[in-house]
Amino acid sequence: NDSGDMNSSNTKCSDRTEFNLVQVNGTWTRHAAQCQDKEGKLSDAKIYENKSDQGVSWTVVSPVVFTYRVIQCKDLLDPRNDTLLRGHTEDQELKGTTSNSEPVKRFVVIDKTVHELYGSKVSQYFDAKGVIYKILPLPTTEENKNMELVTKILEEVHHFGIDRRSEPIIALGGGVCLDVVGLAASLYRRRTPYVRVPTTLLSYIDASVGAKTGVNFGGGKNKLGSYVPPVATFLDSSFFQTLPLRQISNGLAEMLKMALMKHRGLFELLEVNGRKMLHAKLQPSETCGGSAQEDVAAASMRIATETMLEELAPNLWEDDLDRLVDFGHIISPELEMTTQRVLPALLHGEAVSIDMSFMVYVAHEKGLLTTQEKSRIIQCMLGMELPVWHQECSLVLVQKSFRERLRHSAGSLRMPLPTGLGRAEIFHDMIEDDVIYQAFQKWTEELSTFA
Amino acid sequence: NDSGDMNSSNTKCSDRTEFNLVQVNGTWTRHAAQCQDKEGKLSDAKIYENKSDQGVSWTVVSPVVFTYRVIQCKDLLDPRNDTLLRGHTEDQELKGTTSNSEPVKRFVVIDKTVHELYGSKVSQYFDAKGVIYKILPLPTTEENKNMELVTKILEEVHHFGIDRRSEPIIALGGGVCLDVVGLAASLYRRRTPYVRVPTTLLSYIDASVGAKTGVNFGGGKNKLGSYVPPVATFLDSSFFQTLPLRQISNGLAEMLKMALMKHRGLFELLEVNGRKMLHAKLQPSETCGGSAQEDVAAASMRIATETMLEELAPNLWEDDLDRLVDFGHIISPELEMTTQRVLPALLHGEAVSIDMSFMVYVAHEKGLLTTQEKSRIIQCMLGMELPVWHQECSLVLVQKSFRERLRHSAGSLRMPLPTGLGRAEIFHDMIEDDVIYQAFQKWTEELSTFA
Repeated sequence: NDSGDMNSSNTKCSDRTEFNLVQVNGTWTRHAAQCQDKEGKLSDAKIYENKSDQGVSWTVVSPVVFTYRVIQCKDLLDPRNDTLLRGHTEDQELKGTTSNSEPVKRFVVIDKTVHELYGSKVSQYFDAKGVIYKILPLPTTEENKNMELVTKILEEVHHFGIDRRSEPIIALGGGVCLDVVGLAASLYRRRTPYVRVPTTLLSYIDASVGAKTGVNFGGGKNKLGSYVPPVATFLDSSFFQTLPLRQISNGLAEMLKMALMKHRGLFELLEVNGRKMLHAKLQPSETCGGSAQEDVAAASMRIATETMLEELAPNLWEDDLDRLVDFGHIISPELEMTTQRVLPALLHGEAVSIDMSFMVYVAHEKGLLTTQEKSRIIQCMLGMELPVWHQECSLVLVQKSFRERLRHSAGSLRMPLPTGLGRAEIFHDMIEDDVIYQAFQKWTEELSTFA
Repeated sequence: NDSGDMNSSNTKCSDRTEFNLVQVNGTWTRHAAQCQDKEGKLSDAKIYENKSDQGVSWTVVSPVVFTYRVIQCKDLLDPRNDTLLRGHTEDQELKGTTSNSEPVKRFVVIDKTVHELYGSKVSQYFDAKGVIYKILPLPTTEENKNMELVTKILEEVHHFGIDRRSEPIIALGGGVCLDVVGLAASLYRRRTPYVRVPTTLLSYIDASVGAKTGVNFGGGKNKLGSYVPPVATFLDSSFFQTLPLRQISNGLAEMLKMALMKHRGLFELLEVNGRKMLHAKLQPSETCGGSAQEDVAAASMRIATETMLEELAPNLWEDDLDRLVDFGHIISPELEMTTQRVLPALLHGEAVSIDMSFMVYVAHEKGLLTTQEKSRIIQCMLGMELPVWHQECSLVLVQKSFRERLRHSAGSLRMPLPTGLGRAEIFHDMIEDDVIYQAFQKWTEELSTFA
């Protein structure tokens, strides 16, 4: 058979074999994948071997499984509640230390402002639990979000001493605090478990449920970091009581993002109840009256977390560049940086809101949204006291942001845009110049009065 | 049905649902796992939801797949060879830049000594390829293996500018260089691809094929780091020609480790040819005569890499604490630290060799090895000019190391010991004091003359 010979000569110097990995008595051995009936533990990892004139080459394909818990809870700092101390694990052996004599230790990093408000409650909690603990209050602001802060945490953790397997580092604060502690923990001994306790609405919705950690570097936001999820995130909305209203609006922007991208029901909740929820700081009925109110705030937070987890869980390391959660994050990075130079600086959610507002005009201009849908979205933003336009968000800045997006997304724009209320698609081709121009003109004409 | 009612009341406040994740049109949606027939792309990730009185909790289980290539090659720095520039990917789009106008860029970190020997060849290679490159020579010694060196690399990379997806950072050097660059790359933009080119036998066998990166911190070895594999490792044994013999012995120790744990054939290769291979610096026949020699060195390196990949691929993030590759690494960390204070310091492989030598006596004392097997192993070490005993490796140090091992291995010793030539098991119970004592006495009696 001539053609057979030709094929075999073509593949002569490239002979590929697929191997499974099987463990027997503590020793892993590779077996050609066609032999199915090996005894022992089969790994999900594979090794592909290739022989050529140059030598052998191998391709390793190895899945690493990340498991983490996201837990809604009440009264997290009440000593009768075990969650803060032991909620991160279901493993009875890791939970307690009844089996050995060493006492439980916990290292807690807490934002300085949160410490002023809740520090004594945190101390009382661990005192009541008989835990040996160290509380490290830090000024976790955007300006301090750098490797020096990470190093500070690492030095203190190293000095305090924790068990790398069973004693998670606890982070209590906003997004900066959670990001910085996450990075420190992911570096310490190549991975030390950590727990996230978000105290702002923004970090409750956004930073707390994924795997990203990070610090700023060389003038760039989150230029250094890792993708290591916490062992657990504890969500207690009672912290919001002490937040200024502007911080609540800030968080509602990320909630609206998930609504616009994925969940019409959540959008309608925010459309109808956004203003009320803002002023009640998303607290349940005891503090603001009316049990219907409680349901709306709780439901909004639950749906926001659920939709966020849906998008993050299948793409924990962001290997897929097509991400709905990037909505509101195309122009906003540049806008945040620009407005940091011209005070008053925008908060992250505010910049995201302005970005989303403009994109709604782009979607409308492209015929993806009706005029009525566009106007309902803008009204919803205004109801939650979010900015919908900004002087510094110029056409030049917009165009620059689109170009940056294209440059960093492997040659495709990959831009999520709403295609209805609670529905979206990702667009790969560059948006036409005249669409951007027309959208910008209308956006400015209709919304600049709200600045 | 009474028992049915009881069950339902028991699980009333804890209602667990398993969800799959399915992607349609760019949007991920969760579906209860029992509904099988959903259209769209199914993720390997899962979300488990639990409803209780406190609220909702979710458990995310998300596998992240790491893929990397380990490639044996010749003449890596010959401009006619494409491997160094493009061997990390099979993706034609990422390989070339014919599709767009921007030129290819490469950032290269190279050990200072390697730079003196090979720096001009590296420059000539990239010049010939028309690449825009920056070569950063660094003193990558154990004393400099710290976060400052990582920061230095990050600053230079940030200033130079690379495409985060398609332009890997290249590390050329020994284990310290590969570890430090790996950490920098894993931090930059949360993960930037990097390529490892080991120039020592030790790093060829050991550091280059796994996922570990790291630096020293607070007086501890590799206390900070990550588990992020390179996109590719290029193995070219011709670099060994410029290594001192002591560095060859150093690497042979890690090769012997794999032989003792897993591969009798490799042990016999080393037993018969170890001394010859050492003095020929594992070079093929052109440089040292006789084509049989070429086969032996190449076969040894191939088997060492294969057995290492077998053990590392299924356990990339070291979630499983039972690791055969820990053999020789129980006493050696303490011994390395101690001997750094009493010069001349031991090299890593030398400390590993002393550790293995002692453990062979422990295995013999436990009846796992015959006297003849024990003596063949020691002879093999001596043939490769490896130390088998050391003054500073006292009984106190040994006992301290065992206690440390117990403390850091979640309550079990998890100690790999040979149970024959090329065969091993992991032992969980603490080794009896008198076994350690007897082994230590015999070890000192028989081998202290070789110090």
